[in-house]
Amino acid sequence: MNEKKLILPRKLSGFMELEPSKQLVFDGMIEKIKKVYQTFGFMPLDTPVLEYSEILMAKSGGSIDKEVYAFKKGDTDICMRYDLTVPLARYVAMHENELAFPFKRYQIGKVYRGEKAQKGRFREFYQCDADIVGLTELSTVADGEILALVDRVFASLELKIVNHISNRNILFGFIEELKLERYSTDILTILDKIDKIGKDNAILELKNYIQSEEDCQKLIDLTLQQGSFRHVLGKIEHLCQNETYQKGIDELKEVSSYLQAMGVSEENYILDIGIIRGQNYYTGTVFEAKMPEHPEFSTVCGGGRYDNLASYYTDKKMPGVGMSIGLTRLFDLLDQNNLLPKNQPSALAVQILPMDNQYTLQCLQLQAYLSKKVASEVNYQNRSFKSKLKEANRKQVPFVIIVGEEELKLGKYTLKNMNTGEQELLSKEDCIKTLTASK
Amino acid sequence: MNEKKLILPRKLSGFMELEPSKQLVFDGMIEKIKKVYQTFGFMPLDTPVLEYSEILMAKSGGSIDKEVYAFKKGDTDICMRYDLTVPLARYVAMHENELAFPFKRYQIGKVYRGEKAQKGRFREFYQCDADIVGLTELSTVADGEILALVDRVFASLELKIVNHISNRNILFGFIEELKLERYSTDILTILDKIDKIGKDNAILELKNYIQSEEDCQKLIDLTLQQGSFRHVLGKIEHLCQNETYQKGIDELKEVSSYLQAMGVSEENYILDIGIIRGQNYYTGTVFEAKMPEHPEFSTVCGGGRYDNLASYYTDKKMPGVGMSIGLTRLFDLLDQNNLLPKNQPSALAVQILPMDNQYTLQCLQLQAYLSKKVASEVNYQNRSFKSKLKEANRKQVPFVIIVGEEELKLGKYTLKNMNTGEQELLSKEDCIKTLTASK
Repeated sequence: MNEKKLILPRKLSGFMELEPSKQLVFDGMIEKIKKVYQTFGFMPLDTPVLEYSEILMAKSGGSIDKEVYAFKKGDTDICMRYDLTVPLARYVAMHENELAFPFKRYQIGKVYRGEKAQKGRFREFYQCDADIVGLTELSTVADGEILALVDRVFASLELKIVNHISNRNILFGFIEELKLERYSTDILTILDKIDKIGKDNAILELKNYIQSEEDCQKLIDLTLQQGSFRHVLGKIEHLCQNETYQKGIDELKEVSSYLQAMGVSEENYILDIGIIRGQNYYTGTVFEAKMPEHPEFSTVCGGGRYDNLASYYTDKKMPGVGMSIGLTRLFDLLDQNNLLPKNQPSALAVQILPMDNQYTLQCLQLQAYLSKKVASEVNYQNRSFKSKLKEANRKQVPFVIIVGEEELKLGKYTLKNMNTGEQELLSKEDCIKTLTASK
Repeated sequence: MNEKKLILPRKLSGFMELEPSKQLVFDGMIEKIKKVYQTFGFMPLDTPVLEYSEILMAKSGGSIDKEVYAFKKGDTDICMRYDLTVPLARYVAMHENELAFPFKRYQIGKVYRGEKAQKGRFREFYQCDADIVGLTELSTVADGEILALVDRVFASLELKIVNHISNRNILFGFIEELKLERYSTDILTILDKIDKIGKDNAILELKNYIQSEEDCQKLIDLTLQQGSFRHVLGKIEHLCQNETYQKGIDELKEVSSYLQAMGVSEENYILDIGIIRGQNYYTGTVFEAKMPEHPEFSTVCGGGRYDNLASYYTDKKMPGVGMSIGLTRLFDLLDQNNLLPKNQPSALAVQILPMDNQYTLQCLQLQAYLSKKVASEVNYQNRSFKSKLKEANRKQVPFVIIVGEEELKLGKYTLKNMNTGEQELLSKEDCIKTLTASK
């Protein structure tokens, strides 16, 4: 071979790439989430990673956000998707005449944001989304369904969460009462950062919009309300009488009754008027799930209701409600904090070791049989039996099967439990029995 | 809302986007493939879709193939991966000191090729790859393992295939015998297209490199050999004596003995010297699986052995053997030819229908219980009971549960089999029993 310059093997920063044993755990989480989505009657969708820029950038009138990966291929302006919601909107608008509404879909896939690389921020990450989209109207039962889904998903992941729920009509209604609707975006932006800037600074900023200090104080007090639905609703129910505010109250009461009916534990959700979810498209129910034992993780799942999903692409009104988990970030947090399942056993149930490589064919024969039931492989490396046994140990394979002269004479196999050291001479049928029983 | 111009919702051409009921079938195929990979002891890897251009384009010295999606983000030249093999090479080179070899990994993910859009060609498609990578050396048992894996994967998909297997050393050895090694690439290119251009044209082209017409004829005859290993090996075994040719013969014999040991049915594979696999990096075993009942599908899975996977990134020699299924294309072919499982049942086991929406809470309660075992949903739409029943029928939901005054009084539910029309009044526990039994 010619002398040649090697290229340093490296990957782009901000892109997660797990070692296989961790990838197995990651994939296991996806499986669990998918399973829950399915048991709630959601169907899968898998939209392309690439879309026309015009479609993805409809919201900003076609101008490309700097964090979006955008490029030209031939004459076509293309973007990599930065979320799964815009592609869903495009999809339902394209197929509005074929789909049965409410349309319940889940999508689990990678999205792309070329943000500044920093710890815990990923440029490629998995979103696990479930949405219910109606045509013209959608009952608030759907909000309850999504909230119960969130609860069930985290239960299946064995992660303790508290879902902080609110309804945007509460704060909108209060602002309406002050006749300040024209500033509602600015006011909500301030309220959304009380945690960061503190109550006093928030009041200072609010004063730019709200004359009366008392009203500022009342609004902040309202925003800081959190606790059980019964408790908080009891306090704020009659604060304003306008239609918007009372719609918020009514919807919260309905949602609460659905969660009760669906048996969601009252420990797992609270009413938290401070949940605003930034400047996005939510119009009613909003929620953010947090892990009470790890407040530093902040929000691990969020979502809410939007009035009109696909308004850039169709005149039909499509209200919806959805949830999204940023799984890559969540996994990374769990990993960094040693919260992933410990001592993940080997994916292999058994490794088959020939005493000598002359028995390889018999080992393959056995592997072909075993692999119909349990994950198995032959170690056919050109190494000593002893070093193969050592390697099985290092790999934490729970069982090995030893195949040598003695075994072949008897038509049986030595099955060795690598944890206890016990070994037994068994027929291949009995090997399978022991291996499947110990799974 | 202001008057505004709608954007026509559309997706890029050459990108598959399945309706949810077909996506469910697609996902089911991925699950089956993954399961087989795992039972053979392969571990998952999930490399990023984006890589440094320098890494992905190492083979062409950095120049970007026109079918590759490439762009700049800031100062960085980035490409979308066009296969899963180059990222694997980058990965093993990056982690050569941490990995246990042979390294057995599978990866199932999307790859991108901006080819001219045409029927059956996709610009975004799933590859399902499994590879075994050794350090310094890798036994031919690995070739047998990959071939048995291919067989098992298609059995699990219930697709009848015949795997056409060869070893590149056969044709290399024959060319060596003619002392024409310097033309071997050109000669293989001609042999690779005999099917398309015909035998006579192939001879005409070969004459540019091979003086003797007899030698041309012999080479073509060799290339056209196909049949059982026993039969073909019997005919060609002694054709050449050089080391390369005999290495090919020996490896084919070894592989054949492994396949026999692993119980791969002799109906499912043949020796086919004409399998060349283009101008790629294969150096020994090569194979292409075809569906004998659908020759028009051409190759549905291919792969082989390479001597040195990661030579652009490391001095360490890493021989390997792998397989790849282009699942998007295969699925499309099956779909176009009505070969997908017919009458896919609804993903839902049961839909719960309130006789009147005043019973919604009780329905949700039941759904929360049922969904722990079976996929279920409440139809809470604001429509008549009759129209809900009709919709369940249209959706091919196998069972519905009817909840009305009568049922609630008795604390039981009417479970209706939508196929037979039979209905029974059952406790929720008995509903689950019937539903899980009929899954």
